[in-house]
Amino acid sequence: MRKLGAQEVEDIALGAAVLGTGGGGDPHIGKLMALQAIEEYGRVDLIDLDEVPDDALLMPLAMMGAPTVIVEKIPNGDEFPRVYHALRQFLGKEVYATMPIEAGGVNSMIPVASAARLGIPLVDADGMGRAFPELQMVTFHLGGIGATPMAMTDEKGNLLILSTVSNMWTEHLARSATVVMGGSAMIAIYPITGAQAKQWGIRGSVSKAEEIGRTLRLWSKQEGAIRTQAATLQRDAWSSRPEECAKADGAGPGDALQAILQLTGGYLLFRGKVVDVARRTVGGFARGEARLEGTDEFRGRSMCIQFQNENLIATCDGEVLATVPDLITVLDAETARPITTEGLRYGCRAVVVGIPCDPKWRTPAGLRTVGPRYFGYDVEYIPLEQRMAERSRW
Amino acid sequence: MRKLGAQEVEDIALGAAVLGTGGGGDPHIGKLMALQAIEEYGRVDLIDLDEVPDDALLMPLAMMGAPTVIVEKIPNGDEFPRVYHALRQFLGKEVYATMPIEAGGVNSMIPVASAARLGIPLVDADGMGRAFPELQMVTFHLGGIGATPMAMTDEKGNLLILSTVSNMWTEHLARSATVVMGGSAMIAIYPITGAQAKQWGIRGSVSKAEEIGRTLRLWSKQEGAIRTQAATLQRDAWSSRPEECAKADGAGPGDALQAILQLTGGYLLFRGKVVDVARRTVGGFARGEARLEGTDEFRGRSMCIQFQNENLIATCDGEVLATVPDLITVLDAETARPITTEGLRYGCRAVVVGIPCDPKWRTPAGLRTVGPRYFGYDVEYIPLEQRMAERSRW
Repeated sequence: MRKLGAQEVEDIALGAAVLGTGGGGDPHIGKLMALQAIEEYGRVDLIDLDEVPDDALLMPLAMMGAPTVIVEKIPNGDEFPRVYHALRQFLGKEVYATMPIEAGGVNSMIPVASAARLGIPLVDADGMGRAFPELQMVTFHLGGIGATPMAMTDEKGNLLILSTVSNMWTEHLARSATVVMGGSAMIAIYPITGAQAKQWGIRGSVSKAEEIGRTLRLWSKQEGAIRTQAATLQRDAWSSRPEECAKADGAGPGDALQAILQLTGGYLLFRGKVVDVARRTVGGFARGEARLEGTDEFRGRSMCIQFQNENLIATCDGEVLATVPDLITVLDAETARPITTEGLRYGCRAVVVGIPCDPKWRTPAGLRTVGPRYFGYDVEYIPLEQRMAERSRW
Repeated sequence: MRKLGAQEVEDIALGAAVLGTGGGGDPHIGKLMALQAIEEYGRVDLIDLDEVPDDALLMPLAMMGAPTVIVEKIPNGDEFPRVYHALRQFLGKEVYATMPIEAGGVNSMIPVASAARLGIPLVDADGMGRAFPELQMVTFHLGGIGATPMAMTDEKGNLLILSTVSNMWTEHLARSATVVMGGSAMIAIYPITGAQAKQWGIRGSVSKAEEIGRTLRLWSKQEGAIRTQAATLQRDAWSSRPEECAKADGAGPGDALQAILQLTGGYLLFRGKVVDVARRTVGGFARGEARLEGTDEFRGRSMCIQFQNENLIATCDGEVLATVPDLITVLDAETARPITTEGLRYGCRAVVVGIPCDPKWRTPAGLRTVGPRYFGYDVEYIPLEQRMAERSRW
């Protein structure tokens, strides 16, 4: 057990944006909620899965809906205690701790804010190891665990409790309610036992996000110091663009990128400039695609990234480089900070990174649930490492 | 208190089709459910509102959705015990009795079937005195009583409990869930106290439906005997068409019609043949309109009836004859049996009847909730009796 304070929250939020693979909602709003809750109610106990008794009840808390809506329709804070107490009462059992249902995006922060407010610990694990757009896309689902009973609410105070015959029905019913509620909703879902979490959860993902975030922060700090120093020393002789300052001292986004690739076992997929983004909010999802024109060693090449809340498939000149369930993350080329799908803009200079997913997603059941064919792409799933190995042999 | 057996159920179902004003779902399916439940579990206790203690909990049970779907997607019987027990448990209080939420259509029968099966009495009252298409269109709503907590389920076993901030939100959320569930759902709604039911309920509406049904049945029996007699005596000299046989003996649909008009305080609005029906199932509702060409004293005239599950407005040669909340019911001209909006067919020979609604609907709050303007018609509500008085003065 250790305490999460403001610094840890900052780092987790930053790392969660990387693991959010473009979706999951920009963690920024969630981070503000978590920081405020910690300031008001004190630091949060982060506990390891092994510290959770097998028969203890864990209650993940999350937001659902289109990230495009989530970043504009901010919870007022009462929603999570409301779903928490409603589901606790419905189950008739005390809750031992909360946990993130996904490691990426705003939902990495919601359980931190809620744990502070509710005075319960946060478990260092999640049910995806990344972010996914639908409710059945959780490793617990692969273990045959039901998403319900679940509770959902909106900022107005409407409350629903769902108990369904399958996790696909949960997705259908909760999604339509989310749309009626205005495009986003606050949920308590997948109430599980400690034993179930140990068998099916993804361990240590809060700490992993924190480590990625810390790496980015330390680099950013170092880079900031260098930039200040460079600017001071050389006045306007150097460009103020960070990568050029960094070049001068041998530190910069390239180093941060290398550190992240090492931490995550990831690969550099593309480097380029965003030349087109098409997005629409359909059926409660943010869907669309982004096109990038290559720069540097990718000059003359073109990348297309298609997304449904999260980035799903990345192709370069028509060749598939990476698909779900592997992670596809877009980083700002100048700051190495992650860019969410709703943050993609014409002219963004970006680095596209592929990160291998948790092995649970590479099983037949995992691929049926979140493989490229589930999302409508006639593409076979080939693990990222294998695609990269084949590519390097050319 | 009196017992409802098979005969009473037959009569209530028939009368409820009249009060259903074309909607509420053909009571036939509900009648079969009620008859089977009574055969299996015994007759149902029908109790007067005054027999209900003020602090007793009453739980109306109903189906919601498009009648076009309801008549094809038949409950398997487990749904009502499921919503009943779910809501009872959520409320943490024993249920004293059930009651119909509406007097018309399939929802006149659902509480009978459920009362038999659950072993609880049925209250001789409802919350509309007719049928209406939306959840807030209940006299309890006029009394500021919430439709929630409510429970809803489908034939698959999915269960939702809703607790909302207003009855309009209940309608929005439950309607969208109904659509996802396949177009119809089984619900427990408006859990109320005996005191609330006494103040806001419509008294004696089960008995009223029964009386209307009995009138139709007795006429039908008498008419059937006449027809047999006529056919026997006169061989094929007379047409076998009932109204012609009836004419021969001075009894027929005209008598049944007169009896119903007397019972309900209703008016004959039109007599004609259906020449066009346009209907579509939109947003969980059956919407559309029917056109009739006049026969007999209405020859040369034309009627248009517009409906949303229920008949909403009847115009003759462009002049409004009747609007919600007054009842507009279409009867078969040959048998005087009610025809639901989904039963309207090209060539039907029909009689259109207007019946004054309960006075609770004629208050400003009532008209805001179910007046013609709520349904999108730029027509002022004028009580049916007044429209008829003005018409007769011409």
